[in-house]
Amino acid sequence: MLTQLRESLGEQAVVTDPAVLAERSHDRSGSPAVGAPLAVVRPRSTDQVSLVMRLAHAHDVPVVPQGALTGLAGGANAVPGAILLDLTAMDQILRIDPIDLAAVVQPGVITADLAAAAAEQDLFYAPDPASAAESTLGGNVATNAGGMRCVKYGVTRDAVRSLEVVLANGDVIRTSPPTVKAVGGLDLTSLLVGSEGTLGVITEITVGLLPAPGPVRGITAGFSSSKAALDAANQIMAGPHRPSTLEFMDEVVIGATLAYDPDAGLPTDAKAWLLVLTDARTAAADDIASYVDVVRRHGAMRVDVADDPDRVAELLRARRVLNPAMHALRGDSLNEDVAVPRGRLFDLLVRLAELSDQVGLPIGTAGHVGDGNLHPVICFDPDDPDQVRTAHRTHELVLGLANELGGTVTGEHGIGLEKLSAVDAELGPRLRGLQRGIKDVLDPTGVLNPGKKL
Amino acid sequence: MLTQLRESLGEQAVVTDPAVLAERSHDRSGSPAVGAPLAVVRPRSTDQVSLVMRLAHAHDVPVVPQGALTGLAGGANAVPGAILLDLTAMDQILRIDPIDLAAVVQPGVITADLAAAAAEQDLFYAPDPASAAESTLGGNVATNAGGMRCVKYGVTRDAVRSLEVVLANGDVIRTSPPTVKAVGGLDLTSLLVGSEGTLGVITEITVGLLPAPGPVRGITAGFSSSKAALDAANQIMAGPHRPSTLEFMDEVVIGATLAYDPDAGLPTDAKAWLLVLTDARTAAADDIASYVDVVRRHGAMRVDVADDPDRVAELLRARRVLNPAMHALRGDSLNEDVAVPRGRLFDLLVRLAELSDQVGLPIGTAGHVGDGNLHPVICFDPDDPDQVRTAHRTHELVLGLANELGGTVTGEHGIGLEKLSAVDAELGPRLRGLQRGIKDVLDPTGVLNPGKKL
Repeated sequence: MLTQLRESLGEQAVVTDPAVLAERSHDRSGSPAVGAPLAVVRPRSTDQVSLVMRLAHAHDVPVVPQGALTGLAGGANAVPGAILLDLTAMDQILRIDPIDLAAVVQPGVITADLAAAAAEQDLFYAPDPASAAESTLGGNVATNAGGMRCVKYGVTRDAVRSLEVVLANGDVIRTSPPTVKAVGGLDLTSLLVGSEGTLGVITEITVGLLPAPGPVRGITAGFSSSKAALDAANQIMAGPHRPSTLEFMDEVVIGATLAYDPDAGLPTDAKAWLLVLTDARTAAADDIASYVDVVRRHGAMRVDVADDPDRVAELLRARRVLNPAMHALRGDSLNEDVAVPRGRLFDLLVRLAELSDQVGLPIGTAGHVGDGNLHPVICFDPDDPDQVRTAHRTHELVLGLANELGGTVTGEHGIGLEKLSAVDAELGPRLRGLQRGIKDVLDPTGVLNPGKKL
Repeated sequence: MLTQLRESLGEQAVVTDPAVLAERSHDRSGSPAVGAPLAVVRPRSTDQVSLVMRLAHAHDVPVVPQGALTGLAGGANAVPGAILLDLTAMDQILRIDPIDLAAVVQPGVITADLAAAAAEQDLFYAPDPASAAESTLGGNVATNAGGMRCVKYGVTRDAVRSLEVVLANGDVIRTSPPTVKAVGGLDLTSLLVGSEGTLGVITEITVGLLPAPGPVRGITAGFSSSKAALDAANQIMAGPHRPSTLEFMDEVVIGATLAYDPDAGLPTDAKAWLLVLTDARTAAADDIASYVDVVRRHGAMRVDVADDPDRVAELLRARRVLNPAMHALRGDSLNEDVAVPRGRLFDLLVRLAELSDQVGLPIGTAGHVGDGNLHPVICFDPDDPDQVRTAHRTHELVLGLANELGGTVTGEHGIGLEKLSAVDAELGPRLRGLQRGIKDVLDPTGVLNPGKKL
């Protein structure tokens, strides 16, 4: 099969160099590969992807679709004997349509490159996952990536109009017409978004764009309690000045961040912190005034206002060092990605504090409070076997807590390898059975990303 | 089976009165029932729906889920020997949550009633199908209903967070957690939305709400050509003042409307007409000024501005009489529901005018120009067999035209019975096969709304 692929795709498109295989075998989750892959294959067209799938299907060789490997759940990790289907060479922005407010891209386009190309035409690609400078559109779609702008613009799924997909046997479909509205078929577009490479290989993506927003401006505020910060966030969400970003940090994260970066611009005595941004093109000053008013009415101890890009970058600095700061606290960390109905966030924080006391490990929580999607981080010393064990047990307890509060074990990172058992508990056997049944329809022999997600 | 249902659901919940059966056998599409139903069954709870499905599944009796029967594609029409599962008695708004910005409703809740209940708490249910005063949320979800506000707020799918669904065999599932973000499972919520009763019976709906918008204000403008009106609409869409409604009428519709209602407020000499509304809570005057500026720059011959509810109602009057006015033109009409990429709308109008000349029947086009979703109406004399035949042939040609221009045969009404062959052409055999495969996973014996959609 590899010989045939080399003949059709070219020598350099089929790589078996162990160093390359090792490098392409895992994402950023920290999960190891499930097993050694067969080869990395780098198609440059839909036809080439179709050929790979036809051969893999015929030879019953598993295929793991891959983008930039910035995922956080192991979804793109190697499985034994697999072709790692590296789609990063399919990196063309095929069309940006300023009338239809749409872009057509190949899956290997870097998210930030699409955003920049849209901006050149005074247009806006709204989804903004944290990895946007490196991640690919294909990976964003496969994981239904989130980020800090979802609170105003929704998730990646909300931007996707239509997909070209190569099915497990090599057949090529388009999930729907590229119109804004279309109710002719079942919504296969949404089904493929977030399917983590288990249902098909995404080879072309049509996304909707928006008119360019205004410059980002906003405020940060320190609070004397998490309750006050959450109440302020809820009041902002209930009002007419929907922020483009609404982020939260608790006391543990504030402390860890200040220890890691004393110039992060955080109030040292705060028990909680909010970042509230607007990108409104008109009347942004009204938005800012409203945010200042709300946080002050909730007893904000310190309010910083930023109305130029440099000041905004300063405000974002603290939020951007979340992961390294929490990692540094004990030497290692487990990063969660739970979401609950927004009205349950305070309960979540209370229960996490109790859990932290109970297990004796720091748990700091930050994230997208406007969506109810927070990232609790469990800190532990990797050289202490007790702490390592406790941290992994605590991880399971945090997932259970999310479900207990009516939420989900993953708001934006996905299942991949890491949360398979947790999602079984969350969705239940009947729903899992339906999902596997749907998988069987699209990939009857199970060559696509086996052992992930489903 | 009916005896058992009467015992469990009560005598009055199982109706076999021929007059009731006749009345519940068809929607507003004009399509007749496929055959005589067995009974109308009116459950009052999820458990009762589950019981109906268990029995129907065991006895291989088809079940047609029904709401208010305001559909326009025959999706809820009776099929031979079917239980017409009338869900209108499940009409409770279970919860409105002002923190989580969500509502939980039973499927029989009238759309306008949910909107009113939300408004009482200064909240907003955005989807607004034309039938909102009568249609049910269950029907809206089953058809993924559209309407005049989609241009700003999206379609019904965009409002749905989670569904409780009774499967064909009576099993009850929840498609996802009710959180704003959730990527644990495949997107079964979106799969069920728009599935027209073929995959499951929707028994509870969790929708997202928004903070209440401002009062509706806006403008109408008459143009000397469709091209000028479309160019103005496109420029409005590309700008920062996204309207909450953006509607178009062509010359044929303007003429028919003025003949039907001389006080409809339309300029008699206009070749095209736009209605542009905003519901912004802040800076709405800027929106209006921007719309006036854009339409004037595109040569608008007459601009009416409305900034109070009575004046807005007057502006909407012309749009609201579209169907009776077009119907009156020749005595009968076929109403289409095509959508194309917005950049192809002018081509669509040109081709429709050519088609009208060619077949000798008036075709007037109006609709949701901001979404690229227009409703061409083919007018004919029902007493002239030649015109009837020509009208139906023209209907097929209009659908083909939508596909030829990269669009869809149905933007918001659905497939039901009416467009089965057209959607086969649109989606192709492979996609149709996948959809039927998915149907088989959820409804292996095919009891749910057989012969519709798929």
